[in-house]
Amino acid sequence: MKVYLDNGATTQVDEKVMKKMLPYFSEKYGNASSLHSKGQEVKIELDEARKIIRKKLNCDKIIFTSGGSESDNLAVKGLAYAKGKGHIITSNIEHPAVEETCKNLEKEGFEVTYLDVDKEGTINPEDVRNAIKEDTILVSIMSANNEIGTIQEIGEIGEICKEKNIIFHTDAVQGFTKMKIDMKKMNINLVSISGHKIHGPKGIGALAIYGDVEIKRLIDGGPQEFELRAGTENIPYIIGLAEAIKLAKTGKMEKLRDKLINGLEKRIENVRLNGSRKKKLCNNVNFCFKGVEGEAIGAHLDAKGIASSSGSACSSKSLKPSHVLKAIGLSDADANGCVRLTLSRFTTDKEIDYVLDVLPGIIKFLRRLSPYGL
Amino acid sequence: MKVYLDNGATTQVDEKVMKKMLPYFSEKYGNASSLHSKGQEVKIELDEARKIIRKKLNCDKIIFTSGGSESDNLAVKGLAYAKGKGHIITSNIEHPAVEETCKNLEKEGFEVTYLDVDKEGTINPEDVRNAIKEDTILVSIMSANNEIGTIQEIGEIGEICKEKNIIFHTDAVQGFTKMKIDMKKMNINLVSISGHKIHGPKGIGALAIYGDVEIKRLIDGGPQEFELRAGTENIPYIIGLAEAIKLAKTGKMEKLRDKLINGLEKRIENVRLNGSRKKKLCNNVNFCFKGVEGEAIGAHLDAKGIASSSGSACSSKSLKPSHVLKAIGLSDADANGCVRLTLSRFTTDKEIDYVLDVLPGIIKFLRRLSPYGL
Repeated sequence: MKVYLDNGATTQVDEKVMKKMLPYFSEKYGNASSLHSKGQEVKIELDEARKIIRKKLNCDKIIFTSGGSESDNLAVKGLAYAKGKGHIITSNIEHPAVEETCKNLEKEGFEVTYLDVDKEGTINPEDVRNAIKEDTILVSIMSANNEIGTIQEIGEIGEICKEKNIIFHTDAVQGFTKMKIDMKKMNINLVSISGHKIHGPKGIGALAIYGDVEIKRLIDGGPQEFELRAGTENIPYIIGLAEAIKLAKTGKMEKLRDKLINGLEKRIENVRLNGSRKKKLCNNVNFCFKGVEGEAIGAHLDAKGIASSSGSACSSKSLKPSHVLKAIGLSDADANGCVRLTLSRFTTDKEIDYVLDVLPGIIKFLRRLSPYGL
Repeated sequence: MKVYLDNGATTQVDEKVMKKMLPYFSEKYGNASSLHSKGQEVKIELDEARKIIRKKLNCDKIIFTSGGSESDNLAVKGLAYAKGKGHIITSNIEHPAVEETCKNLEKEGFEVTYLDVDKEGTINPEDVRNAIKEDTILVSIMSANNEIGTIQEIGEIGEICKEKNIIFHTDAVQGFTKMKIDMKKMNINLVSISGHKIHGPKGIGALAIYGDVEIKRLIDGGPQEFELRAGTENIPYIIGLAEAIKLAKTGKMEKLRDKLINGLEKRIENVRLNGSRKKKLCNNVNFCFKGVEGEAIGAHLDAKGIASSSGSACSSKSLKPSHVLKAIGLSDADANGCVRLTLSRFTTDKEIDYVLDVLPGIIKFLRRLSPYGL
C-alpha cells in the first residue's frame, strides 16, 4: 500500500486543477502583456484569478510570485527596503524564508527581535505588543507552523499591530485554506501563500496586500504585477492556483488526524505529541518517539510505502536538529527522534489504519537496536 | 487564417514538452528535498535536467529560477551585492530586467556605464574595453536584442572580460538556442535563459554559471539550488525546460524570415528594416513603416488573425517610444511606427504568404488616413 503523508512538504496537483490549466499551455498561450487578442484572452483570465484570491483573503491586491519563499522575501525585504531602516519583530519558529531573510536584514543594519514560543509553539500576542518599539516597521509571524502545525493568534496580533500602526505580515503557506484568514477583519497587511501545499502546482504563489503598504520590488524589469514583480506571468499556474483555492476544503482531515494521534499514543509508549493539541492544523501530526532516530523511522516507513518527514522538507538534508523543535524545548536527541505525518483531503481511513498497523512495529524494532535502551 | 508571429513575446508549449511534464504534476509529485522515495525519484530527474542544460551551455552550474527576469536580477544584483560596490558596464538596449536593475543599483551607490549602440544596434566590443575601469566588477551585455534581433559579439566581449579578469553576464533570453553560446569557449560567466521563448513553459528559467563567480542570493530560505535560490523546485517546468532545449532547432526560420523581409520591402514603400541584416536572430523581423502608428498596424493585423507586436510585450502598454528604437537613431514618430514579427520553428510558408498578402493593404489603408500624408 502506498500512503503519502508528507503533504506539508508538497501535495499532488488535483486533477481538476490540471484540467483547468491544460488549455493555457499550448492553445491559450499568449503573453498577458500583448495587445493582440491572443494576449488579451489570457489577460482576462489573469484578472479573474486575481479576483478569486482577493475575495478569498478579503484584501486589496494580489501579486503573483514563484512561490511561498519568494512571497516571504518580497514581504519582508520589500517592506524593509521601502522603509530603509528600522526594527522588525518575528518569532523563533518561522520558516527559513522569513528567518534567513531577517538574519540577512540584521547584517544590513536592521534590528530584529525573535520572539520565543511556549512549549506548544504558541507566540503570546502580548509579547508582540511588548516588543514594539518606536522604530518598529514590521511584525512577521507565521499563521501556522510548518513542522508542528501550531496555529497562531493572528487576529489578536493583527489587532495590536493596527492599534500601534505597524505593518503585519503572516506567512500562511501552511495555514492558507486550513484556517480562517480574513485580512481586512483581522488587520493583516501582507499574506504569503503557495500553490503546491494546496494541490496546486509547485512554482506559484502570491503575496496578498491589504491597506496602504509600500513595498520595493525584488525582481526589477517589466511593469507586470502593478510594478511590484517583473517577469512574464505564469498563466497556467496562476489559473491553477485560483482553481486549487476554489477546490480547497478540509473535509475529513481533522477527524483522521485525531484518529492517527490517538491511535499512535495508544499503541506506542514514550511518545510525545509536538505542538498544541487544540490550536493545531487539521492535517498535521508530529510525534517525538523517544530513543530512536527520526530519519531511521522515515526510511523504514518509506520501505513500507509510507512517505513521511523528519522535520520540514526544506531542511531535510541538514543534520542539525530542527530550530522549531528546539524552540519548543526538545533536547537535541528528542528533536532528532521526531516524525511529521501530514494529511491531505485525499487521505483515507484505510491509509491511516495502515500507518497505525505499521508504525508501532517500526518503533519497537528500532528501539531494540537503540543505544538509548528504551 | 490564424498566424502567430509574436514568438519574441512568448511561444506555445511544444506538445512533446507537455507530454514530458505531465507525469510530474499528479503522479511523480514529490518534493525534491524529501528523503523518501517519492522525493528522491524527482531529485534524480532534477539532476538530469541540470546536466542537459549544463552540457548545452558548457558551464559549471545551473540555478533554476522563475524566468528570464529573475535570472537577470540574480546575475546583476547577485554579483553586485556580493561585491558590495563597484562599476558595471552594460548597454542602452538591454531588456528592462537588466536596465531597471542597473538603474536601481545606481541609486544604491554603484556606478553604471550604458554603452551606446550603432545604427544596427551593435555594441562595439572595443567600447567595452575602453569603458573598463579599475573598479569594474561586471559587464552585462545581452546576446541578442528582444526587439530588433541584433546579435552581439559576445565571444569578443568575453575575450576582453577574460583578459581584464571581469565577470561577464549575458541575457540570452532571446538568443538561447538560436545562436551559439559556449560559456567556457566564449568566456562567459553568467547566462540568463528562459523557458517560454523556446516552446517551454512560462515561469521557468535558469542562471547558468561558469567559473569562479560569487553571487548573493535574492530569495533567502531553504538550501535549494546550491543555496543560491530558495524555494521548492518547480519540477514539471524544470523537466519541461530541459526537454524544450533538447527539442530546440532553428529549422526553416531564417529562410522564412528572409522571405518575409524581402517580400515586405518589395511590396511596401518607405519601409526601414530595423537592426542588422547580417547579425540578426533567425526569427526576428522589425520594420518601421513611415507615417503610420505601430499599434494601429497591430490592431489591423490582429483583426486579420495575425499576432504581432509593436515593441516588446514587456512594455507594450506604455506609450513611450521604445528605448531600443531610440538608441538606434529613430525619431519618436518613426519609433512609434514599428512592428515586430517574430517567427518560431512552427511558422510555415503559407503563414508568411498570408502576411505578405495582408500587410501591404493595411499599410496602404492607414497611410491614406495618416496626417503625415505619406
